[in-house]
Amino acid sequence: MDVAKVALVGFGTIGSGVARLLLEHPDRIARHAGRPVQLVRVVDPDLHRERGVVLPEGMLTDDLEGVLADPDISAVVQLIGGLEPERSIMLRALESGKDVVTANKALLAEHGPELFSRARSLGRSIAFEASVAGGIPIIAALSECLTANRVESIHGILNGTSNFILTQMEQDGSSYAESVGEAQRRGYAEADPTLDVDGSDAAQKLAILVQLAFGARVHWRDIPRTGIDVVDLDDVRYAAELGYHIKLLATAELSAAGLELHVSPTLVRRGTPLAEVRGAFNAVRVVGDAVGPVFFHGQGAGQMPTASAVVADLIDTVVGRMPITFRTLDLWSSGDDPAVKVRDPGEVPGRYYLRFHVNDRPGVLAEIAGILGSHEISIASVIQHEASEEADRLVPLVIMTHSAMDGALRKALEAIGRLPCVHAGSVRMRVRDGGHPAS
Amino acid sequence: MDVAKVALVGFGTIGSGVARLLLEHPDRIARHAGRPVQLVRVVDPDLHRERGVVLPEGMLTDDLEGVLADPDISAVVQLIGGLEPERSIMLRALESGKDVVTANKALLAEHGPELFSRARSLGRSIAFEASVAGGIPIIAALSECLTANRVESIHGILNGTSNFILTQMEQDGSSYAESVGEAQRRGYAEADPTLDVDGSDAAQKLAILVQLAFGARVHWRDIPRTGIDVVDLDDVRYAAELGYHIKLLATAELSAAGLELHVSPTLVRRGTPLAEVRGAFNAVRVVGDAVGPVFFHGQGAGQMPTASAVVADLIDTVVGRMPITFRTLDLWSSGDDPAVKVRDPGEVPGRYYLRFHVNDRPGVLAEIAGILGSHEISIASVIQHEASEEADRLVPLVIMTHSAMDGALRKALEAIGRLPCVHAGSVRMRVRDGGHPAS
Repeated sequence: MDVAKVALVGFGTIGSGVARLLLEHPDRIARHAGRPVQLVRVVDPDLHRERGVVLPEGMLTDDLEGVLADPDISAVVQLIGGLEPERSIMLRALESGKDVVTANKALLAEHGPELFSRARSLGRSIAFEASVAGGIPIIAALSECLTANRVESIHGILNGTSNFILTQMEQDGSSYAESVGEAQRRGYAEADPTLDVDGSDAAQKLAILVQLAFGARVHWRDIPRTGIDVVDLDDVRYAAELGYHIKLLATAELSAAGLELHVSPTLVRRGTPLAEVRGAFNAVRVVGDAVGPVFFHGQGAGQMPTASAVVADLIDTVVGRMPITFRTLDLWSSGDDPAVKVRDPGEVPGRYYLRFHVNDRPGVLAEIAGILGSHEISIASVIQHEASEEADRLVPLVIMTHSAMDGALRKALEAIGRLPCVHAGSVRMRVRDGGHPAS
Repeated sequence: MDVAKVALVGFGTIGSGVARLLLEHPDRIARHAGRPVQLVRVVDPDLHRERGVVLPEGMLTDDLEGVLADPDISAVVQLIGGLEPERSIMLRALESGKDVVTANKALLAEHGPELFSRARSLGRSIAFEASVAGGIPIIAALSECLTANRVESIHGILNGTSNFILTQMEQDGSSYAESVGEAQRRGYAEADPTLDVDGSDAAQKLAILVQLAFGARVHWRDIPRTGIDVVDLDDVRYAAELGYHIKLLATAELSAAGLELHVSPTLVRRGTPLAEVRGAFNAVRVVGDAVGPVFFHGQGAGQMPTASAVVADLIDTVVGRMPITFRTLDLWSSGDDPAVKVRDPGEVPGRYYLRFHVNDRPGVLAEIAGILGSHEISIASVIQHEASEEADRLVPLVIMTHSAMDGALRKALEAIGRLPCVHAGSVRMRVRDGGHPAS
């Protein structure tokens, strides 16, 4: 069979990993692709930086136009971050007759409908396994392996940076700020870690999974999200005392009432697989109506795990599987399932962990409990440690609720916040008790 | 696009699950298959038994010949156990121009080369996701998702019955025989559980994974295997005391020396994902040179999880992905990788758990330790509890070794077995300390 000639646009960390796999292991790749896959061009504006991989003479170029114009190149791997010029380049690659492989979840979460519609009308495909959960094949699982199922729920730890920070706080007892610093030193967090720690990155990934699993066209900005920057070391300790680990959990759960969607720091019951995910790892638990719970765990980022997913997509594209999948799935089409309705977050019940800063005097708990009760929220447990002698009479009060409506809880918290004995800095986190393998 | 007409051969537990999915959820399946998938015939000799699914009038038949002769039927789902007549039926289905989907791992492990070669020469495909680990998409992972990697190792809990029995012993403190009985009462074990508990079932599955991951053509009978029937409740307790769970582990590990292969009850370090797999679940940990460790967990058997995998395969077949994968992978071909050499088990080093029945008198430990030392096997730890007054002076002695050669250990155990103070019933199990997510 003919050699498949491919180009790489973007020669950064992931790009150099992809180049390494293609150049160093051509036999392995040809065996699975059914024909040789030849990297012929690498496009990057920087022609000189050292990337730890040696390209053959003349392969690296800054001439994007020349690559797009080359009719021999059938597929382009695009590994540039951000929305522009990535969006324009992808459109032009598709218009030049090339299939595309990308790892850019922000681009898909933002411009998925436009890009997928354009690819469809041009008879081309866009592969994006690497855009969610790095080396974990969750896109293939949802689009090919679990297709006999109605997906009932997805719970994911989709941001490795946040999970590293939370693990660090728990294991080393270091503060949130110290843990962010450690993540930066190890290269897990950017100099500005905002998109990782505020839940935006996880929400973008969840929007992609939700499109695949439920046919639900939800813009990532419409997914309610809370970041881990609200999590204090105290919360990590109280959670441990109560039998939980705190995780930044992306949740999509289908019920008769609609689709519950959010990204939020969540107390996850110890001993469940999601609770035990440590460090910079990612994990996804999917429940299907036929298959039951399936759990996936692996490296969600990093050069080679991401390159592994990119090259698998490239092989799928070259061998002809991806064009079939892309055509059949009809993602982000206008005909998306109208039956899937995203629930009003205020109507979604759940258990909550609450932490208040209160004055250490009699009657405070009664006042707070009274307000919760008047909003039909009942208390499962309370932690109130004795204040130290040095403290200025301000103590933490931790309350775990039974299942309550999010909307009712918000109202109760507003009322509690107006109590003179309650000071600023209250914390509210969801609690997840389920998710045992057999549940 | 045309309707894909398919037939089901074998209307047992899994067959009725597959019929349910195809008949009750045609929209879901058509959406992923790109066209309607219509079940037109179900073949079974028993036309009357109640299966919990209502077939349309005239669909159930005992006329296999008529189905094979029907040119409108493009794919056959074969869900019959055993080797014959399953093998002959599959050959005739292929020869009748039909693609095949199967869940029969014994058939593939025994006759894979013949069946795959015949399918290839006829231009047909055989899909077999459901043959290993039920609802976990491990076949797709190895044949499509991790194709950029050289697989370095596979560790799997591939037999849910054994895992249920071991979990039962540990959680309820019930004996091996009682736990087998409980597995039978719950439908996890057959009346004759031999193939599950003696490691044959896991070895058959491992042979299939090893063909996919390493291109190594190993007959399952050539995989060294030990069953869980050697495990005593005492071993479960000592393992717990030492920080391990006992699992029936299927191991395939590639090194410069070759491929280490075996199925054996193994002490797996607590806190690692494989150690925490409970009940009838399955799990597989794959390490690839690019992706690192990826861990999969789900239901390895049961009606609907297995039917989920079968129907995913049927969709893959009908949509055209499976024919591509089957053709490209060239499984069980004569051109298998000659570089993969299966290691002599005697040359494979590892840590071991040893339990002896010894006379409770001074010097016994010294004698045993002396023999181990003379075979270059050093001791990591020893457990020797005080014998009860009632005991007839026979006590258990548990030794954990440091890494030792399997061959040296066997020789040492023979010598130890000849000591007058050592009685029959010694136990030897492998120990696995690695497998932490980050390792």
